[in-house]
Amino acid sequence: MEVFERNFEENVKVIKQLLNNNRMTRFRAEFLAMHQYDQAKIFEQISPEERDKVYQYLSPSELASIFDAFEVDEVPIDDYFYEMNDNYAASVLAEMYADNAVDFLNHLKDLKKVKVYMQLMKPESAREISQLINYLPETAGSIMTTEFVWIDENLTLREAYEYLKTVAVQAETIYYVYVMDEHERLTGVISLRDLIINEDSRLVKDVMNTRVISVQVSDDQVEVAKMVQDYDLLALPVVGFDHELLGIITVDDILDIIQDEADSDYSGLAAVDVNVDHETPWSAAKSRLPWLITLLFLGMGTATLISQYEGLIESASVLSAFVTLITGTAGNAGTQSLAVAVRKLTNKTEEDTKNNLMFEILTGLIKGIIVGVTIAVVAGIWKQNIILGGIIGISMACAIFVANLAGALIPKLMNKIGFDPAVASGPFISTLSDLTSVFIYFTIASAFMSYLS
Amino acid sequence: MEVFERNFEENVKVIKQLLNNNRMTRFRAEFLAMHQYDQAKIFEQISPEERDKVYQYLSPSELASIFDAFEVDEVPIDDYFYEMNDNYAASVLAEMYADNAVDFLNHLKDLKKVKVYMQLMKPESAREISQLINYLPETAGSIMTTEFVWIDENLTLREAYEYLKTVAVQAETIYYVYVMDEHERLTGVISLRDLIINEDSRLVKDVMNTRVISVQVSDDQVEVAKMVQDYDLLALPVVGFDHELLGIITVDDILDIIQDEADSDYSGLAAVDVNVDHETPWSAAKSRLPWLITLLFLGMGTATLISQYEGLIESASVLSAFVTLITGTAGNAGTQSLAVAVRKLTNKTEEDTKNNLMFEILTGLIKGIIVGVTIAVVAGIWKQNIILGGIIGISMACAIFVANLAGALIPKLMNKIGFDPAVASGPFISTLSDLTSVFIYFTIASAFMSYLS
Repeated sequence: MEVFERNFEENVKVIKQLLNNNRMTRFRAEFLAMHQYDQAKIFEQISPEERDKVYQYLSPSELASIFDAFEVDEVPIDDYFYEMNDNYAASVLAEMYADNAVDFLNHLKDLKKVKVYMQLMKPESAREISQLINYLPETAGSIMTTEFVWIDENLTLREAYEYLKTVAVQAETIYYVYVMDEHERLTGVISLRDLIINEDSRLVKDVMNTRVISVQVSDDQVEVAKMVQDYDLLALPVVGFDHELLGIITVDDILDIIQDEADSDYSGLAAVDVNVDHETPWSAAKSRLPWLITLLFLGMGTATLISQYEGLIESASVLSAFVTLITGTAGNAGTQSLAVAVRKLTNKTEEDTKNNLMFEILTGLIKGIIVGVTIAVVAGIWKQNIILGGIIGISMACAIFVANLAGALIPKLMNKIGFDPAVASGPFISTLSDLTSVFIYFTIASAFMSYLS
Repeated sequence: MEVFERNFEENVKVIKQLLNNNRMTRFRAEFLAMHQYDQAKIFEQISPEERDKVYQYLSPSELASIFDAFEVDEVPIDDYFYEMNDNYAASVLAEMYADNAVDFLNHLKDLKKVKVYMQLMKPESAREISQLINYLPETAGSIMTTEFVWIDENLTLREAYEYLKTVAVQAETIYYVYVMDEHERLTGVISLRDLIINEDSRLVKDVMNTRVISVQVSDDQVEVAKMVQDYDLLALPVVGFDHELLGIITVDDILDIIQDEADSDYSGLAAVDVNVDHETPWSAAKSRLPWLITLLFLGMGTATLISQYEGLIESASVLSAFVTLITGTAGNAGTQSLAVAVRKLTNKTEEDTKNNLMFEILTGLIKGIIVGVTIAVVAGIWKQNIILGGIIGISMACAIFVANLAGALIPKLMNKIGFDPAVASGPFISTLSDLTSVFIYFTIASAFMSYLS
């Protein structure tokens, strides 16, 4: 690791020099010896003029392997593609792994260019890509690749191995080899390990595993990720409705999905996208302001509500000391149950909604009663007023109960009406619970007002 | 996928019946044909008496492969181990992958038993395990396995392949084969794919990649995960201070690490552990209450502060309407910058602290000014009072600025003094920002008090 980090800045400098001095041979020797990820990192650092040289010095397939290493939303792919000539660009896309090429094509802004590339591409690549491009985002179909290896079950292991040699260069993984019947239905899988450790003369059909773990093309990518995690797979086959083998999903894509899903839940809980690296404070502020201002207007509801109780506050200003304590604590309780609910939805582990509702009702009751009693005692002693302690305690208990329940229910509701339950969820629930908490507090306080002083 | 989910309950029933009717042969045929993950899931479901049969019917190595599929903190491993006889338990541990066995031994509560198992184990397994058991948690050393394949660089590819056949059963992965020099220093790596696609007669040293991507044994597991993600690796070698090859980390462990790190950040932001599945509302409430009550007492600080301003509130009760709006909005802004900061720390992408400080100062200023001006106008118009609007606006701007900065700084501070910056971070920052916001608000309001009415 050291070796790479120490040399990166140096590497960039060397590569830039070679490009600027038109040293093609040395550039190819130096650059192509690096890992694709490092090539990609350097490519990101060089100028448009230098990139132009790269397009001259590298073949489309060499550039394709660099582009395969990019995360599509982290680099200016529009710039990269439009500065190449169309034929070269089409060849690069054709040489990329089909799943990645689809990702790129889906992200290019100029749809006319996409059409041009598809026309210029060799037909078999264009066919592969158009098969993939229609799958819904975040499904198994949208993340699979069609570059898998399949063999006939009647081959011997020796023959299978020899065949594997001839196709190994193109396939995205050769560590699982799949078996299909005459209707292209998936009937078995054999790992390269099994192929190696068994006798050469045995038949594939006798060694292969017929209990193949697979996913449907329309399955959600989160479920797919969970399968790969649970079963410790390096690749997972994707089948159609008739169990025909359509593609495979490799573990490197699963790593990215797990990271992305986690990041998006985390971002949601804080109402900020932690994944975007902002260049300027202005762009960072601009991305954070919409939620902040939306929630500000939601918060205006609470301010209006408190305004209604100005008379009450004037005559018992001691009440005002506990407003933020009650809203804050209820907000914290709501955030807790919300986080648990969002996580269950993301991981699709939700099974019995009714039981879960009862569960959260009871959890909220226990939390509310314990915190309520605590604050009743503390506030009662502090202000030397049992009635006040009682008001605060009961309000706190109710506010926590309501916020806790709202935190558990709102994500499910949002999920049902088709919204992402994770978006801005944390600040949203605390702002909403401010409103309910204030309402509960002042209603209870008004009721007991006459006993207060 | 369907196939598995449909059959799981049925599978459990069948296996239970076979065990209860002492049908050893049928049990072995049915059970061992399943994937280890499914075997593990069934094992979790059966009774202690049925487990006792399993220990009789399966060899230690067959049980070991089931235990390899467990997540150590999700199953009652103490129960499982103490109900086996010690010799059998020791053999199971010896047959497990060394990294998993270490994980289990580290989690067993009865340290005397651990000693007994280590003594009963075959010496080479005990040696492997004791090498691993001393690495600090969350480092590369603690998650690596010593079961890797290495070969001599002077072998031909054909010879290497033949050798691989003989060791493939034991190794955790055979898809990368490593090359060491006479001092056991890592000098090269050859993927099984490269081994297959090149000419049989070529030498390993001519085909192997000498720019091996590796990590130090003391590197943080998050950095390791990032390397595997970036370079799309299936396994990553771990080296000691003299670059000697100590072990490898496989991608299946990386999947778990990414998930765990993400879950722990997410849990921290909500002050609740989303990873623990609670059986009863009581245990769920018990796990959420400590933070809720801690934050309650922190919130008492805010209540005390507001109490000091009771006179001010009595004379200008209109002020009270905006307290929760200001504390809530500042809390939201603080949560945003906090989430970004925690994420940067987790991903170790923090490079220049000074620049980042300036960045957050400016971001906070922009957020504060825009939200401040918005609320000044809204409040001024609503209450028909420009001075009041001004007080609210300035207070809001300052409160947002302070909360935003605190959100960015506190995680770094906690990280520096050795605390996990993610723990309870979200509710903590909003509770803290309640205090600063109230202080700012009432200080400014007091100053302008005379102009207010």
